Amino acid sequence: MQILDDIPRKHAKLDPDFECLVFEEFRLTWRQLNQRVDRLANGLIALGVKPGEHVAILAQNSHRFMEFYYACARAGIVAVPLNWRLSDNELKYILDHSETIALMAGAEYLDTAKRLRPKLAKVRHYISLDGPAEDMKNYEELLSQSSSKPHQGPRDENAVFILMYTGGTTGLPKGVMLSNRNIMTAALGCLLGMGITKADSTLMILPLFHIAFWPVIVVHYMGTKAVLSKKFDLGFVLETIQRERCTHMNMVPTIAAFLLIFPDLDKYDLSSLRALTYAGSPMPFELLMKLKEKFPNLDLGQGYGLTEAAPTVALLDQHDHQRTETDQDRRRLASAGRECLVTEVRVVNEKGETVKPGEVGEITARGANIMLGYWKNPELTAEVLRGGWLHTGDLATVDEDGYIYIVDRKHDMIISGGENVYPREVEEVIFKHPAVLECAVVGVPDPTWGEAVKAVVVLKQGMSATEEEIIALCKQHLAGYKKPKSVEFAGALPKTAIGKILRREVREKYWAGRDKKIG
Amino acid sequence: MQILDDIPRKHAKLDPDFECLVFEEFRLTWRQLNQRVDRLANGLIALGVKPGEHVAILAQNSHRFMEFYYACARAGIVAVPLNWRLSDNELKYILDHSETIALMAGAEYLDTAKRLRPKLAKVRHYISLDGPAEDMKNYEELLSQSSSKPHQGPRDENAVFILMYTGGTTGLPKGVMLSNRNIMTAALGCLLGMGITKADSTLMILPLFHIAFWPVIVVHYMGTKAVLSKKFDLGFVLETIQRERCTHMNMVPTIAAFLLIFPDLDKYDLSSLRALTYAGSPMPFELLMKLKEKFPNLDLGQGYGLTEAAPTVALLDQHDHQRTETDQDRRRLASAGRECLVTEVRVVNEKGETVKPGEVGEITARGANIMLGYWKNPELTAEVLRGGWLHTGDLATVDEDGYIYIVDRKHDMIISGGENVYPREVEEVIFKHPAVLECAVVGVPDPTWGEAVKAVVVLKQGMSATEEEIIALCKQHLAGYKKPKSVEFAGALPKTAIGKILRREVREKYWAGRDKKIG
Repeated sequence: MQILDDIPRKHAKLDPDFECLVFEEFRLTWRQLNQRVDRLANGLIALGVKPGEHVAILAQNSHRFMEFYYACARAGIVAVPLNWRLSDNELKYILDHSETIALMAGAEYLDTAKRLRPKLAKVRHYISLDGPAEDMKNYEELLSQSSSKPHQGPRDENAVFILMYTGGTTGLPKGVMLSNRNIMTAALGCLLGMGITKADSTLMILPLFHIAFWPVIVVHYMGTKAVLSKKFDLGFVLETIQRERCTHMNMVPTIAAFLLIFPDLDKYDLSSLRALTYAGSPMPFELLMKLKEKFPNLDLGQGYGLTEAAPTVALLDQHDHQRTETDQDRRRLASAGRECLVTEVRVVNEKGETVKPGEVGEITARGANIMLGYWKNPELTAEVLRGGWLHTGDLATVDEDGYIYIVDRKHDMIISGGENVYPREVEEVIFKHPAVLECAVVGVPDPTWGEAVKAVVVLKQGMSATEEEIIALCKQHLAGYKKPKSVEFAGALPKTAIGKILRREVREKYWAGRDKKIG
Repeated sequence: MQILDDIPRKHAKLDPDFECLVFEEFRLTWRQLNQRVDRLANGLIALGVKPGEHVAILAQNSHRFMEFYYACARAGIVAVPLNWRLSDNELKYILDHSETIALMAGAEYLDTAKRLRPKLAKVRHYISLDGPAEDMKNYEELLSQSSSKPHQGPRDENAVFILMYTGGTTGLPKGVMLSNRNIMTAALGCLLGMGITKADSTLMILPLFHIAFWPVIVVHYMGTKAVLSKKFDLGFVLETIQRERCTHMNMVPTIAAFLLIFPDLDKYDLSSLRALTYAGSPMPFELLMKLKEKFPNLDLGQGYGLTEAAPTVALLDQHDHQRTETDQDRRRLASAGRECLVTEVRVVNEKGETVKPGEVGEITARGANIMLGYWKNPELTAEVLRGGWLHTGDLATVDEDGYIYIVDRKHDMIISGGENVYPREVEEVIFKHPAVLECAVVGVPDPTWGEAVKAVVVLKQGMSATEEEIIALCKQHLAGYKKPKSVEFAGALPKTAIGKILRREVREKYWAGRDKKIG
């Protein structure tokens, strides 16, 4: 299989009656999914969309979202998935910038589409995904009116399959162009790393518009079942695992934190679960130990990656998670693992030389999973992909066996009195406090030190901690210049759609009105 | 990993002290193998070999053979592995035709190299693989005199990595050009199909010059161990599995037949064995049943493929082999399985249309594993790869679930009295006779019928059968026109280097002096 839509086509041939996609009351076999993909591909082309043109989707998870992805791949149309947490202005920017000509909107976003419509000059077609809507085509009607004849698209594995805008940590959102081959290669990396087989099935709780949609591709590659969840609710998630006998779930570390304190956790039969993977942000070591303790028989896997790598770069695999005997074993549990089978990693200094074990450098990666580039931004593309390597902007050290220790985002590093402080290191220590649920360490303006280290902490319900306690804990484990000068307690922290804490937003309010340090 | 030499490079980084290649007294770790590969790549380039130039190897299996493959991939040199069963004339033809500029010869073939040398105008370098030899460079000296500095080659995954000549069933040998990507993709297909993990290791008993070298690539891809065997001797093979705790062995069906009657079979501890795969020619159903009975706990896998597909096309996997309850299950055990994950198969009629279930057509295949083409033969390349599909020359039917039943080679079909007879079908019946070890059914000239069906049979030692018995058995199971008109008993049958029976050679003697039917 080379093109994403080979997946439903192949399995519809080999295993037509196997139930491969479950969402709420919808249960699709490979034959049904494949036919709906053909209908949608035929329907979009009949509407006048041409291969290479851009169609956006603004929707919660559903089977239709996956049909859309597969149909785009089949017809050679470029999918532009939209983050539903963005503001109207941001969405308009992306729709304009991407030159999108058709917009599919889920039930929750019909109003958004309506509001945006007068401002969108290039969008010619509006399709309502989940039922009839005024002045919009109805998705199911489009399907039923279209031929189920096998659609023959251009089949170019190196053509852009998805144009995925990533958060503008350095300004405006950037459109990451990923080809069919990028996505298929990254999925293979995860598949091999986690040993996914036909006996597995995944529960997808992260949004499909995000590159975190890879678990669906991984289980579908092997011909097996993906169950989609629309909104994140732990009770619903656990009940779904129990009912659908899912073997795998991918999550972000914050979900693990909530999972472990979920009061009804033990009421569910989770015996089908074989593997939990986590990604998106570093897993605090203390949290990982608790997760291992709670689920001693699970294969745990940590993925490190980014949209530009579709996303697979490194993996801390189940074997790494099993080894906890030596200090080295335990230290490695706090690493991002090692380069996965499909990707090569080099951590380099500013001259582009591979750093020695222990030295901090930037993570760079190459492989067939690395993006084609940024849409309409050849300068940034050339810079980020210089020398044939993706420059991730993540700083790390590597040990003698290739384990990668992320010290932090290049942009998140705090410079306090000329010393480099990596927020993650400080957060790791704060997590040792039993009352801490979440925290973010940022640099705030300081007249003496340039930047001062500040911790923003969310406490577990019914538990307490003081600023002094937190600072004392840090003093005990860290060099003096690294400990927070101040601690603020908050009710919640800003997060991305997949639950990644947004340090940038935490930081912003302290820099308001100043010569803002954009990370 | 995209280029073959990424394999030793990656694993030397991730798992430097792991023993990955064992041959007789030689045991190499990834670090050692990778360094030797760098030395050889540097050495060949220092000799004056340029990327894209052709270097041939004429040798039995050894660690040096694999070093040669990896070094060629690393330096961008094209490897031309030679079949040591070929005559001097055939070797000369291939060396001339391939424009080979350097020849590596193993100890057993120094004389051959010496005899050929005066006739080879283009070969500039002669390298003795296994020790000093007159007027030849010594392989180990070349390595020790060369730098172990990481070699930086052109890294073009789509460049020719191997030029592999296949037997001339239709005339002169053809040079199949396989790229790095072809080989890596085919290996992935086998890896996923058989669920190979880091816990596996393979014993390689088939010659490395043949596309059957894939198991080494498969286990090496996962970073684990390949044990190489030089010559085929069952006692040695079984002792090696026992000593090295190999989990996998790939073989041809004829080896399975010999294995099952090997008197000392039960004296060996084969408990490490998890999987046996077989390929190269169809496995007679009766033999497969005996194999399952003898090794009830093994994962059995049958690969169907050809050099032009590097070689993976279809796989009858362990799950297929486990199912024997219904008639359909048992019938499927006689199939070649289904298209593997990396390859798409269509069985087509002469108009290129997909045949209906049960209809005979030609197997065609596409995927990233399909060869670039035939060296210096654009016409044949265009014909065999027409429409973007590899035309295999194998005739088959397909059932409703995609199981492929090979009826025979297009060229081996017998036309007797206007009726098509597929030799394999007749051979399957003859194998039911308990005294039959091997057989080949061919068409011989017949004044009345054009061709008459003839069986050439090898009996098991100490057992007997008569011509009448064999013909009666066939009459019982087959339409009258399919039964052999005559049976000849032979001491052995001609085979290829991997043990595939050569029907063409069996047939030839009956057609001597006639308007020969070349298959």
